[in-house]
Amino acid sequence: MTNVVKLFDTTLRDGTQGEGISLSVEDKIKIAGKLDTLGVHYIEGGWPGSNHKDIEFFNRVKELDLKNAKVTAFGSTRRKGIKAEEDINLNRILETQVSVATIFGKSWDFHVHKAIQTTLEENLEMIYDSIKYLKSKGLEVIYDAEHFFDGYKNNPEYALATIQKAEDAGADWIVLCDTNGGSMPSEIFEIVRKVCTAVSTSVGIHTHNDCELAVANSLAAVKAGARQVQGTMNGLGERCGNANLISIIPNLQLKLNYQCITDEQLSQLTNVSRYVSEIANINMPVNQPYVGAAAFAHKGGIHVSAIMKHPKTYEHIVPELVGNKQRVLVSELAGQSNVIFKAEELNLDFDKESAQAKKIIDDIKTLEHQGYQFEGADASLELLLRKAFGELEEIFTLESFKILVAKSKDRPVASEAIVKLNVHGELVYMAAEGTGPVNALDNALRRALEKFYPEIKNMHLSDYKVRVIDEKDATAAKVRVLIESSDFENTWSTVGVSENIIEASWQALVDSIRYGLIGKNRTTSEENNQQKKLGLINH
Amino acid sequence: MTNVVKLFDTTLRDGTQGEGISLSVEDKIKIAGKLDTLGVHYIEGGWPGSNHKDIEFFNRVKELDLKNAKVTAFGSTRRKGIKAEEDINLNRILETQVSVATIFGKSWDFHVHKAIQTTLEENLEMIYDSIKYLKSKGLEVIYDAEHFFDGYKNNPEYALATIQKAEDAGADWIVLCDTNGGSMPSEIFEIVRKVCTAVSTSVGIHTHNDCELAVANSLAAVKAGARQVQGTMNGLGERCGNANLISIIPNLQLKLNYQCITDEQLSQLTNVSRYVSEIANINMPVNQPYVGAAAFAHKGGIHVSAIMKHPKTYEHIVPELVGNKQRVLVSELAGQSNVIFKAEELNLDFDKESAQAKKIIDDIKTLEHQGYQFEGADASLELLLRKAFGELEEIFTLESFKILVAKSKDRPVASEAIVKLNVHGELVYMAAEGTGPVNALDNALRRALEKFYPEIKNMHLSDYKVRVIDEKDATAAKVRVLIESSDFENTWSTVGVSENIIEASWQALVDSIRYGLIGKNRTTSEENNQQKKLGLINH
Repeated sequence: MTNVVKLFDTTLRDGTQGEGISLSVEDKIKIAGKLDTLGVHYIEGGWPGSNHKDIEFFNRVKELDLKNAKVTAFGSTRRKGIKAEEDINLNRILETQVSVATIFGKSWDFHVHKAIQTTLEENLEMIYDSIKYLKSKGLEVIYDAEHFFDGYKNNPEYALATIQKAEDAGADWIVLCDTNGGSMPSEIFEIVRKVCTAVSTSVGIHTHNDCELAVANSLAAVKAGARQVQGTMNGLGERCGNANLISIIPNLQLKLNYQCITDEQLSQLTNVSRYVSEIANINMPVNQPYVGAAAFAHKGGIHVSAIMKHPKTYEHIVPELVGNKQRVLVSELAGQSNVIFKAEELNLDFDKESAQAKKIIDDIKTLEHQGYQFEGADASLELLLRKAFGELEEIFTLESFKILVAKSKDRPVASEAIVKLNVHGELVYMAAEGTGPVNALDNALRRALEKFYPEIKNMHLSDYKVRVIDEKDATAAKVRVLIESSDFENTWSTVGVSENIIEASWQALVDSIRYGLIGKNRTTSEENNQQKKLGLINH
Repeated sequence: MTNVVKLFDTTLRDGTQGEGISLSVEDKIKIAGKLDTLGVHYIEGGWPGSNHKDIEFFNRVKELDLKNAKVTAFGSTRRKGIKAEEDINLNRILETQVSVATIFGKSWDFHVHKAIQTTLEENLEMIYDSIKYLKSKGLEVIYDAEHFFDGYKNNPEYALATIQKAEDAGADWIVLCDTNGGSMPSEIFEIVRKVCTAVSTSVGIHTHNDCELAVANSLAAVKAGARQVQGTMNGLGERCGNANLISIIPNLQLKLNYQCITDEQLSQLTNVSRYVSEIANINMPVNQPYVGAAAFAHKGGIHVSAIMKHPKTYEHIVPELVGNKQRVLVSELAGQSNVIFKAEELNLDFDKESAQAKKIIDDIKTLEHQGYQFEGADASLELLLRKAFGELEEIFTLESFKILVAKSKDRPVASEAIVKLNVHGELVYMAAEGTGPVNALDNALRRALEKFYPEIKNMHLSDYKVRVIDEKDATAAKVRVLIESSDFENTWSTVGVSENIIEASWQALVDSIRYGLIGKNRTTSEENNQQKKLGLINH
């Protein structure tokens, strides 16, 4: 039997069912691109029959140049009492023009009676007709057998009959779902083994984490013969989450000798995991296996002295295999290699042994320690590097700003800002209103600079994210503001950190405008190609 | 073989090795009391040989009237080259006057050479002498075989020799440790099975979560014959944490027919888990298996309509068995059935055909359309429903507030707020500073209300999240603020939405305080039972 295991990511569909998870179409497109670089084989983009936002995603994802992944749309088997051709859900899948359809049907007799309220026989026909219809349109069809394990435990003959119907109809994959997340690894192993002898179609596994066993259950299924694993990034998903592909991939590949992705792709694991958390605006647990900041962190004195003798004494793998790293001291944060990589990308003359380079790396480490995160803010990192190399001209300096926010009874809040800037020696004093304090400040700043840099009118903020870094102190905690800005051609991201949300926003705003104006000045020259190389365009 | 599995909790020792975990002696005493009510059999209180704070704990814990648990002190085998009687670490254990000692020794030849740098033979003697000495003093001795699985994989004969030495010396338990957390469940199962035939002493298991498999590995060991499980509350512990007893207990007891604690104790699981998080000042993931606020929460419309037909359709156990409860998340994905469900839960007389009910549902839909999201803000939804039913007394009304934020050159931003409230007819005028505009407003509001509601001092904000809803307009876009608040017993979440972050924060702040004070006022009355029914306590 092959040792190749296919990865099916449903972060964009099942993952969004998690509490507090809400992804815009733009977010979903970004995540899809990142999943492709990780090398997952299938990206489930959404349920076009249930959600209009998902239809827009399928339109836009076609523009992405995916190298590894096939995009798949989700739906259910046809409704009872109608023909598959007449079913809106199934036709919506076809309208998305994906090459792979993933449809779910019922395996548990209890569900057939209680949830969809039809006969066992009609349910079999619903499975058969739906798959047959999608196959007749030339699609690869993945059949998700919902509640398969609960169904099998209750009525094994019927559960097997449902997937045999799927096989008869020509399904390319039969994926067994532990939908309620209540099964034990030993049960999963036994049942998957029996299924693998009962059908000849390739089998997959889809588990949930309600017993903190989703990863173990996925591994047990692979051991028993499953060759597709469905899950999400960081285990996002409803209730206790889906199986966490971020843990499953290295377990399969580094521990159990299965093949999922390349070593190069595996080394992106930490980066991808953190990127998805950032986009989904979810705080990643520091102790997340393999990729968390504490996954290879050592605190106890005995452990530290032992790992200094040999890392294997308290580390189960070499952290770099998954793009993570060992941390011994609290202050020791990631960065140096990223900084060197970035400097090289910008063609800066960066000798990592020089005093200058060491100072830059120290400065960045200090900032990271304060809560800055440059992974989501390339533009701020670039400005920082250019400044250190004397390549950055200051556009203005701040003399002062004041913001007044006032509310009376039931009237809306009023926000005003006044800025005083020094622009190339000229003092500029400008006021503006806004829909909130940051918007008022942004408006005042832009109005003050417009006279000097008319191109500022073409730039706008396209995203604004606020994250509380240390949640324990709530409104007195530090916040990190990430601002994404765009003009007609480019998009760039900047960061600010402070205990004060206004201060953090100010830092990110100023970086955003500085970076935008540098880019603009260069675009008017003939250095377009070099800019692309430098990452200033299509960034 | 018996189906009784003993629970060994090391939250107070190994748990404190986790990043960001720091427990005072008082904290440890509180947690020990709570662990006893849960019915754990052993509480490992600390390492008296390495930590002065731990010695104080052992003195104070004697005053607790523990009903179920034995307290145990941790230490290592004697140092090389000396007699056990001369070893400070071992004598410190005796000084604590505990009845159970837990000592660890080396099983992995690599560690003997690299970490403690002695001979394989001397290591065996260290194990033997140390256990023999403690047994001669009348203690129950639990021997932790550190790195046993890595040791066994590398040199099975030597690994077995170490635990046979422990048996010869009279150890009461031999606990096999997967110290680096790198083993797979199949390996754990095979190795524990072999050990159980090689020794006649009772075997235990101690795992770590570096592969997201600590729970599965503990279950595999029990299946193979282990009858003691070591772990921590909520999986606290170094790197990726220890095995999570909060998940292991219900898995063993509700799924695999082992006996650990009584049904009554099991129903305290959610309460104990949340209590420990609160004391350790750790944010509990909402999606934590069994006990998280989202563990039995339903968001998707199809799922909600199915669980209303029968909970078993999407719930693997009855949540009350572990002291948790079902929640229906009100979100765009679901709809009116969720609101009805919530009203019923609150015992409101909600006739869904009435004009009143239709208006409430319409109002909630309108709010959701404006960007409110009640799935993460149960308390705001409850206030809204209670208000519609005339069950809510206003605590105060706002006359006005003003916030001033000012920055000069490179000096930090200063934030001040002034609020003017009408509290039961009395005008209150109060000012405060803060680390940011929202913090200043929060401080001023609390100071203004403190005189009327002194219990406000016991409530604090535990999380503050900001999300931009329509990102296209950036700083002019709407923001949604989610605030989580806690007191000693409860945690609740509220929401505010506005184009102005201050207005949105204000709404969520006011809801947070209103909800907190309603809960408090009722606790002082005699309506405790009704409150429990209404979900206001232990919510």
